[in-house]
Amino acid sequence: MYKLPKHEAEARLKKIQQIIVDTDAEACVITSSVNQYYLLGYIFDGYLYVMREGDPYLFVKRPTNIKGEGVKPVYKPELIPALLREMGVKPPKRVVLETDQLSYSAAVRLQAALEMPEVNNASGELRKARMVKSEYELEQMRESARAHAKVYETIPSLYRKGMTDLELQIEIERQMRLHGSVGIFRSFGENMDIFMGSMLAGDNAQAPSPYDYALGGAGVSPLLPIGANGSVLEPGTTLMVDMAGNYRPYMDDMTRTYVIEHAPDLAYKAHQVSIDIHKAIVEKFKVGTECSDLYIRAEEMARENGLAPYFMGTTQQAKFIGHGVGLEINEPPVLSPRSKEQLLPGMAFALEPKFVLPGIGAVGIENTYIVRENGLENITLFEEELIHL
Amino acid sequence: MYKLPKHEAEARLKKIQQIIVDTDAEACVITSSVNQYYLLGYIFDGYLYVMREGDPYLFVKRPTNIKGEGVKPVYKPELIPALLREMGVKPPKRVVLETDQLSYSAAVRLQAALEMPEVNNASGELRKARMVKSEYELEQMRESARAHAKVYETIPSLYRKGMTDLELQIEIERQMRLHGSVGIFRSFGENMDIFMGSMLAGDNAQAPSPYDYALGGAGVSPLLPIGANGSVLEPGTTLMVDMAGNYRPYMDDMTRTYVIEHAPDLAYKAHQVSIDIHKAIVEKFKVGTECSDLYIRAEEMARENGLAPYFMGTTQQAKFIGHGVGLEINEPPVLSPRSKEQLLPGMAFALEPKFVLPGIGAVGIENTYIVRENGLENITLFEEELIHL
Repeated sequence: MYKLPKHEAEARLKKIQQIIVDTDAEACVITSSVNQYYLLGYIFDGYLYVMREGDPYLFVKRPTNIKGEGVKPVYKPELIPALLREMGVKPPKRVVLETDQLSYSAAVRLQAALEMPEVNNASGELRKARMVKSEYELEQMRESARAHAKVYETIPSLYRKGMTDLELQIEIERQMRLHGSVGIFRSFGENMDIFMGSMLAGDNAQAPSPYDYALGGAGVSPLLPIGANGSVLEPGTTLMVDMAGNYRPYMDDMTRTYVIEHAPDLAYKAHQVSIDIHKAIVEKFKVGTECSDLYIRAEEMARENGLAPYFMGTTQQAKFIGHGVGLEINEPPVLSPRSKEQLLPGMAFALEPKFVLPGIGAVGIENTYIVRENGLENITLFEEELIHL
Repeated sequence: MYKLPKHEAEARLKKIQQIIVDTDAEACVITSSVNQYYLLGYIFDGYLYVMREGDPYLFVKRPTNIKGEGVKPVYKPELIPALLREMGVKPPKRVVLETDQLSYSAAVRLQAALEMPEVNNASGELRKARMVKSEYELEQMRESARAHAKVYETIPSLYRKGMTDLELQIEIERQMRLHGSVGIFRSFGENMDIFMGSMLAGDNAQAPSPYDYALGGAGVSPLLPIGANGSVLEPGTTLMVDMAGNYRPYMDDMTRTYVIEHAPDLAYKAHQVSIDIHKAIVEKFKVGTECSDLYIRAEEMARENGLAPYFMGTTQQAKFIGHGVGLEINEPPVLSPRSKEQLLPGMAFALEPKFVLPGIGAVGIENTYIVRENGLENITLFEEELIHL
């Protein structure tokens, strides 16, 4: 039933079963690809039915080739109660669902099919269950980060004078795919559309977007207003490269900044402050630190250096400087001014203090760190200074 | 307020307002990117509030730079009733939402915010409103199809002996981007993940997938089990190329089949049956034909030619031979055995009778047709025979 190492599958199942106990439920029905993959190591169209004890049941619409005990073909959710009874399981009184991901229509249909008096949400708990990672998961993130670094290494050789941001992005996308990027970029929530990542050249870094990313960019399509806008890479401006780190199911996140020929002093100064924020946070880090502490420290350093107006954007400023990373690019915790979430061993997060400088562009770096007993492990090992093209 | 030609914006608004009347509602709140774009020509994070008459209101979370009468910043939906009252609008008694797209959590929050006794769904009606296209919309689809054809034209020059399906796909992806593909592939529903389209080489065409596409393929990641699986393109097999036609907001859909060096006679025979099905359907077409008629005709011709076991898959057979196309790749109507939907002028649909031949691969073609008073207009003009690599 599982396509994961046995101890991984067991540990993950236990976490979900604990959520079922904690939410006073008898079962949890998992329908999102990410959480199906988390539990099983693969995905299907259907209902992954987890109980307080024992292996889950799989009620499968597609594909037709999943076999095993507890795997039952269904073409609609209304068949589930009878199948449960056949297997000697009393239809449950209380089930938790992923109602942050399921559409209203699908959730209500599932509620009726399972004869539930109410709909209960486990989305948040399931996301929290994925927050602390195992060595198996973290090693995938390190592998992803190594491929990511190899791709960024090719950027100077891909650049040609007079190129647009989009032309360079297309060559980087090709390198990403050749280095194993799966292409699609998994995220949580309704305002996270993007294609393979973000390239922000010059003043396009100031363009606000509808999405919940740290920075924006106008994009090239009115249906996807984010990132590169087709502007020529001009000498004296910067190019911020924040392309996806999706080389494994578990991802990393890394931003580096390139300078087109030369840049004003302010670019170097602000970029150094971003690096210094990373250094200060790594140096002072203790297990149990609250996320808000990291935000406050970064914001303080931006202010002390006179960079507050440029911190995390200009016309639209993001109110976070980092976020958890894993199977999705925006996992908990969020490094925001009010998050009391503690950073604990096994968590992985991206830290991205960035500045947007009018007339120049965005500067700063983003690294992905793993929280370890003795401090932070940087897995995104790549030149941090401004890189000249 | 609109970034569309005036007559387009007016006609689209009227269609939505008719839905509000038909569903006995006072307003419709649009939250999906696709329907926001349909009405406005751009998207935002927030609530597009359409009433039976007059211009809509925009309650905008992000971006911060949308200006105009009726545009109000909000950071949460609970602020909407007070803002409506300020503008002299009585808070509505009945509002329709897009509950096939909105998450359960978001829909319930919106329901409470607007003090609605129940949640009512307009997703299906809104999709139907987009079914009949204007000349403005159809022209974008023709433009997309022309770019699509130019990309397919490059394929023989991209091919190298011994390549894998994925290696060739990566080069095609690059050509797509250079020809204006926006990258992401807009679709409706919860089982439609894919990255830039599908390449099926040899027996990988038989691998069933969890997704609602015509054919499957094992994919290269357990988190995205669809399409190319990294197998070498072997002489004597076929390669079916069904990459996205997303060169404009309005898309086309086109499949062509390539032969690696040579292929058994059965490949030529079955491919010709696919072409003949297209011809038969185009010849017999009359405005008002029901979708099921097209399916039945195609299935009949597959049977008459002894190809029923290979029709639309082997281990898992799709129960449709085509679908509407527009802002999303899977718009209504569906060409399925029981669809009584009539094909009317201004509709656009993809027709994809395909065969999967064990030991050889998938064959057949997919064209996109526009329904016109006097018949079908094929917009995907490109070599239809098997193309040799």
